[in-house]
Order: sequence, then C-alpha cells, then structure tokens
Amino acid sequence: MSGLRRVMVANRGEIAVRIIRACHVAGVEAVAVYSDADERSKWVRMADDAVHIGRSAAQKSYLDPDALLKAARATEVDAVHPGYGFLSESGAFARAIDEAGLVFIGPRPAVLEQMGDKAAARSAAASAGVPVVPGTDPIEDPADVPRLAAELGFPLLLKAAAGGGGRGIRPVHDLEGLLDALPAAQAEARSAFGDPAVYLERAVANARHVEVQVLADDHGNVVHLFERDCSVQRRRQKLIEEAPAPALHEETRQAITAAAVRLAEHVGYRGAGTVEFLVDGDGNFYFIEMNARVQVEHPITEAITGVDIVAEQLRIAAGEPLSMDQASIERRGAAVELRINAEDPERDFAPTPGEIAVLRLPGGPGVRVDTGISQGDRISPFYDSLIAKLICWGEDRDQAYARARQALTEFHVEGVASTAALHRELTNDPELAAGPVHTMWLEQHLSTGR
Amino acid sequence: MSGLRRVMVANRGEIAVRIIRACHVAGVEAVAVYSDADERSKWVRMADDAVHIGRSAAQKSYLDPDALLKAARATEVDAVHPGYGFLSESGAFARAIDEAGLVFIGPRPAVLEQMGDKAAARSAAASAGVPVVPGTDPIEDPADVPRLAAELGFPLLLKAAAGGGGRGIRPVHDLEGLLDALPAAQAEARSAFGDPAVYLERAVANARHVEVQVLADDHGNVVHLFERDCSVQRRRQKLIEEAPAPALHEETRQAITAAAVRLAEHVGYRGAGTVEFLVDGDGNFYFIEMNARVQVEHPITEAITGVDIVAEQLRIAAGEPLSMDQASIERRGAAVELRINAEDPERDFAPTPGEIAVLRLPGGPGVRVDTGISQGDRISPFYDSLIAKLICWGEDRDQAYARARQALTEFHVEGVASTAALHRELTNDPELAAGPVHTMWLEQHLSTGR
Repeated sequence: MSGLRRVMVANRGEIAVRIIRACHVAGVEAVAVYSDADERSKWVRMADDAVHIGRSAAQKSYLDPDALLKAARATEVDAVHPGYGFLSESGAFARAIDEAGLVFIGPRPAVLEQMGDKAAARSAAASAGVPVVPGTDPIEDPADVPRLAAELGFPLLLKAAAGGGGRGIRPVHDLEGLLDALPAAQAEARSAFGDPAVYLERAVANARHVEVQVLADDHGNVVHLFERDCSVQRRRQKLIEEAPAPALHEETRQAITAAAVRLAEHVGYRGAGTVEFLVDGDGNFYFIEMNARVQVEHPITEAITGVDIVAEQLRIAAGEPLSMDQASIERRGAAVELRINAEDPERDFAPTPGEIAVLRLPGGPGVRVDTGISQGDRISPFYDSLIAKLICWGEDRDQAYARARQALTEFHVEGVASTAALHRELTNDPELAAGPVHTMWLEQHLSTGR
Repeated sequence: MSGLRRVMVANRGEIAVRIIRACHVAGVEAVAVYSDADERSKWVRMADDAVHIGRSAAQKSYLDPDALLKAARATEVDAVHPGYGFLSESGAFARAIDEAGLVFIGPRPAVLEQMGDKAAARSAAASAGVPVVPGTDPIEDPADVPRLAAELGFPLLLKAAAGGGGRGIRPVHDLEGLLDALPAAQAEARSAFGDPAVYLERAVANARHVEVQVLADDHGNVVHLFERDCSVQRRRQKLIEEAPAPALHEETRQAITAAAVRLAEHVGYRGAGTVEFLVDGDGNFYFIEMNARVQVEHPITEAITGVDIVAEQLRIAAGEPLSMDQASIERRGAAVELRINAEDPERDFAPTPGEIAVLRLPGGPGVRVDTGISQGDRISPFYDSLIAKLICWGEDRDQAYARARQALTEFHVEGVASTAALHRELTNDPELAAGPVHTMWLEQHLSTGR
C-alpha cells in the first residue's frame, strides 16, 4: 500500500503504538525510539527496531532533534513520523529531516512555521476567507494597548503568538488587568515558546470548540473528514471529545468544513491537520488555530468515517494520492473519546506517576482502546499522564455514550489514581447528555457542581 | 431503549460478557450464572447479580434447566438470554421459560424444535423454495439404503437428524462404508442427541460455507444483515470467519440472502438466527441448517453493518420492532474473526486447560476483542477452549487481514498453548489471501501444507 519501506516514529506512548500499527498494516517497517525511562515500553516491543535516544527528560531525548536525526540515519529509515507534541510542529526539525534526505511525515517546514505563528496563521485564515476571532497583530508598543483593547471590547484573551495547544493564553477582564498581565505574559511566552510576542483576541462567550479534520496530498487533493466537538476541557486541555459535533446545524457543518478545506488549500497544506474553531450560540464560527499534525482525538473521526488517518499520512508521505475523494467519505453514527489520565481530580489534577499494577481494558462492539501502557509498566513523571484513550462508537450519540459508560465500568486500573471516576461522573451528567456544552462548562462543573 | 428490566444470562464465557454489555448499554440489569469452576469469572464480576447454579460439569449447571429456572425465579428477572451452545436451541428449555411467565430470548419453542430436527428443517426450507442439498428422509429400514444411496450418488454424508453445529456427520465414500457406518452412527446419534435417526445427504464438492444473518421481530419484520463465509474449518469447527463472503457474485448474494429471509418468514422465526448454506463453484447454494440463536461469529456482521445484534435481540424480546428496515442496512468494508483457542495444533488440537498467566490483547483502529477471560483466570477443562475472538475490520478485505495480522502480533498469552501461531500462519497464507477457500481447505492444509 505504501511506497515507504521503513519509518522512524519520533515519539512515545500511545501515539507511537498507533503509528507502528499503521506502518505494519501498510507493510512498512517501524523503528521506535526511547529514552531511559521508556526502555521496556510497549512501543519498543512492537517495533521492528528501536534506538535509545537519551535521558528521560524530554529535552534530552524526544525533544532533541540531533539525537532523533542520528537515530534515523543509523537505522536507515526513509521517513520520520513525529506524532503529536514534542517536535511534531517544529519547522526547524522538519527542515532538518528534509535536508537529511528523509521524508518528514507532515506539512512542509514553511507551512509548519506559518501555522505555528498564531498571528501569521490568523492572517492566512483571513486571506482564505475564513472568519477569525476579532483580534490584533502582535503588540509592538504597550502604549497601543488601551486603544486596541477598547476597539475589541473586554473580556479579552492575551495570547502568545508562538503558543499552541491551548498554552500561552490568559483571559483578561479589564484594562488594568491587561496592563498588569502584559509583561509577565511576554516573559512567559519568551521562556515557553522562545518568542515574547503576544496579541489580543476577543473572548467569545459560551463558545464550543469545534475542529475539522483535513487531509491533503501532494496531488492537489484536499478533503475534510467532518468535525469533532472538544468543548469538555479543563484549563484548555481536552478530556472528552466527540464526533460529529452534537446539535450542529447542518448549514454550519457545511460552512465550517468548507472553511477548513479552504484554509488548507490556501496555505498549500500537506498531510493530516486539524483546523480549530470556536462556534458561538448563533452558529458563527471563528478560526483559532491549525494543528499541523495528527491529533490525540483523531480516532473518533476514524470511528465515524472508517478512514485510517495515520495510514493516509503514510500514503501522502510516500507521494501517493489520498485513498478517497470527498464524495466517497460518509459519516456514520457517533463516537466519543475519553482520555483517562494518571491524575487525581481530588488533588487539582496533580499527576500521579507510578506503576500500573493492574490494567483491565474494556472491549466489545464499538469499543476501541488506544494505550501505550501494559500492565506492569510505569507512568513516568517526565511525560504526559495519559493512561489510555477509550473510543466508543454507536449508531447514534446515545448509544456511543451508553457504550462509553459500559466501557468505563470495565476499565480498571490499580497502582495510580486516575480520571476514570471523573469520566464516569461526566458521562452520566444530564447536561452533557443533552449537549452541546461550552468550553467553560467543565471548569464551572468542577468548581460548583460536585 | 429496551422494555426489559432485568435479564438472566444462561451462559458463560465471552458470550456471557457480550450479553451483559448489551444489557447495560440498553439500560437493562444483567444477572449472571456460574458453576463451581466459574465463580471468579469476568462475567460474574460484570453482572449486577450472580447465581451459583451447580457443579463444574455442564450437565450439572449450564445444561441443567431446573437450576437455571430456579436462578431466574430467585433473581426476579423478566427474561432469559441463552447465548449459544448449552440450552440455547432447546425447545424444552424455551417452553419451560415461557411457562414460568418469563421471556425466552430466542425463537418460539416450536420453531426451535423444527429447526433442531434437521429433516424437518430441510423440509421447511424446501417448502419455502430454498434449495436443499439432495438428500433423504430419516432412514427407517436399512434395506432401503442401497437404493437411496444409488439415487443420490457417492460421496455422501451420513447425518444425525438431531445433530447440529457440525456434529453428528460422517462422510461415506461407497456403499460398503455406508453400511458399515450405519449402526454406529445411529448409536452415536442416540447417545449424543437422544435420537437415533440418521439420513443421507449428497456431499457437495469444493463447497464454501456461507451463512446469512437474519433478524425477525414480532411485528412481521424480517431482515438480513448480509452473509459470512466460514469455510476455514477443522472437523467442521470454524476457526476463521469473514464478512462479506469474498468473491461472492452479487447475484448469488442477493439470491442467498433472499432465501434466508424467505425461510425465516416461512417458519415464523423470531429473534436473531443464521441460515447456513453450502455454495459450490458455480454459485449454486444449498441450505444446510438454521442456527436458531446468536452465533459465535456474529461480531463480523456487526463490524460491517454497524448493527448491534444482541441489542436487537433484546428489543425483539421486549416486543419492540427492529430498529431498522432492510433498506437502511448498509454494509461497509470487510471484517475477519479469528477464534483463538486453548488448543495445541502440534498435538492434534488437544485442549490445553490451565491458568492464563499473561494475557495481552491487541487494540487500535478496527480491532475488537471479545473474551470471557482476564489475566489470571483459568481455562477450564469442562467447557469449550475459546480464549478470545479477534475481530478486525478494514475498509476492504486486504486491510481487514492486514489488521488481523498486526493484531495477532500483539496478542500474547502465557500459561497455555494456543492456536494463535496457527492463525499467524493462516492469515499469511497466499491461498486464503486470494480467497475463497472451500470447507476442506484447512484440513488439507494441515495434513499436507505445513
């Protein structure tokens, strides 16, 4: 199926497992990488070869482009899949891979850099005719701030231009708070993203987070795989995602998916990507950012469309056309993903690293589990705290949620505290069941509703 | 969704797990039963209540109608799901459940009895205009045998009228062999099925086993969910099943599914059932038998249609209409099921009971695992040796098999020998990949090809 022969997976955890599976199904060899902490991990066992790339701290391994490039050369792969997080959206890493004569499985470096610069991305969206949240260019002179803020109107978000994935965002409610926050936001942006630039955006009230999955190949084909609703968030980290977005007006669906395709076409996108929007109560939607990589929640889209998104990434990287055109993509039923993390909701979601002494996973019709963990493995304090993603499909949203509730009763972990109990509570919540909810719903629920 | 309140699952193992899941997803309580050997089993843990019904030998528990009826009364259920095997096709058990004022989740007793008597079933098929393999009525006088055999022509099958599920069948190649086999076949039929009646059927050469899933409610609706090919058999026990049947001519598909619906309508069928056929190289098909219960391999049909067959059984039992009509049932992609048994192919498939010390199950897109086993459980010598069913869906047959191969590399069991390695070999076999194969293919492969 794929013209690739051997792919290095420059990532860890469940997404490394996911990519290795896709490689094998496509008849492609997969090379894993691992840090000290991950030596005996599931993805290392599954891969055809594995390379130690450094110490447990991500900066010394999964975030070290030189170590990854060296591993890729040593194992003679012809392509590198960056997964999500880590270096997946680094234009510099993609460029280094290109310059080594290998295929970076993702967009071209210039597109990564454009989408990684939030102001440039907003500007691209605007010129593609995609609505953006009213906002400013990066602030150059603090003296402009009162005028800019007055033009937009509070509440506002102060955002790092180089931020992403929900990081580097501060809500501000008045001018005094904004002026107070500005220096700290710039300093934080510099230390977190290497760039102090920040800008202002109007805060959209009671908005839902709706994102559109796109695929684009090198033959001019761009398709969308419909949308996901990821409004159940805590501190902008998604906990529950579902596809399709519940109670989304069909006209809005058509307009938002068309907008996503338009943006991808406009920037010359290649690979799998996600265009994120806020949708207000009137069905107006506003571009937030484009995630230029495979997304954690991609399986719910696979569940409703039958398309294997990672397989398509491999095809695209091999220079092949997409395996489908827009007209052949049909959605069916509904799917929900629950991210079960090793975090303790009772202690402000503090990570709970430790050994997974017992891990029992659910099964049965419509249930998919993606995990990088086997019983006996350790959740490391060095990385994210994801234990498993439960993806439940149903003929309709009610059945998907009913299967998710059943899957949660079967999911059993011992050794670390997890968010499973919170998911049990949420999937039984009548407001969520009635849907949709807005992006602040979970935080309000956590602070008042329990 | 279901009008039932509380259902007893009169079975064990993976099908008990499957039914409990369906109950919970439908909002119905599930009561498990267990023998001595199964006290700490997965389905007992999953159920809302559980009743000990007797000793480990099936005759003293899962085959004991009185113990089951007592358990049903004691737990105040309103329905009994018999699963497959055990008493699932016992007209007497179904009648006893009816007479206790409970709902038997399956066909009416008279229909069970009719389909359980192979001669009566053949006769029903013939009067419904469904082709049957040329054969005889039950043999009343051994003196008739030479004439009957000559009319049909050898090779023939000598079959127990009360047999089923591939049991009670002897191939005979000439008159001498037939006359030799007759008394033993009658004696065996009496001891195995309580009825000595046997009959002759022409052996269809190089036939495939193709079966059609049907659903029928009490409102006159009968639908089919397309067909499955279960030709990969050893001693008439299925090892690999797939849906749809590969390379089946669309005209044959339409004719065979229509025939199955016609038979179900003709006999006044209710519930989920499977009409089994042999299909020869010219696309001629012949009714073999009807399995009046849910089938081990039902998940591959669920995978290609999205229909939850056990959920539909619950709806039907509650007196509700099917959730779909024929026009709304679409198939998509292909699915394959691998039955992984605790049997040793190197020792003539001898069962290998014992403790499952380690059990690692595959996951990812398109992969479903149904199992009644958790790591640490024991495979009991008292029951069938199924460890797990791996059900792999793909956008096409090639992807389904590629995912099955990957799932097999992830499947890992320690403590007992299993058929997993044989499945690895078979799913890499070029003849099977080219498909279709006939029902003797695996035995020939095992005796010559390895």
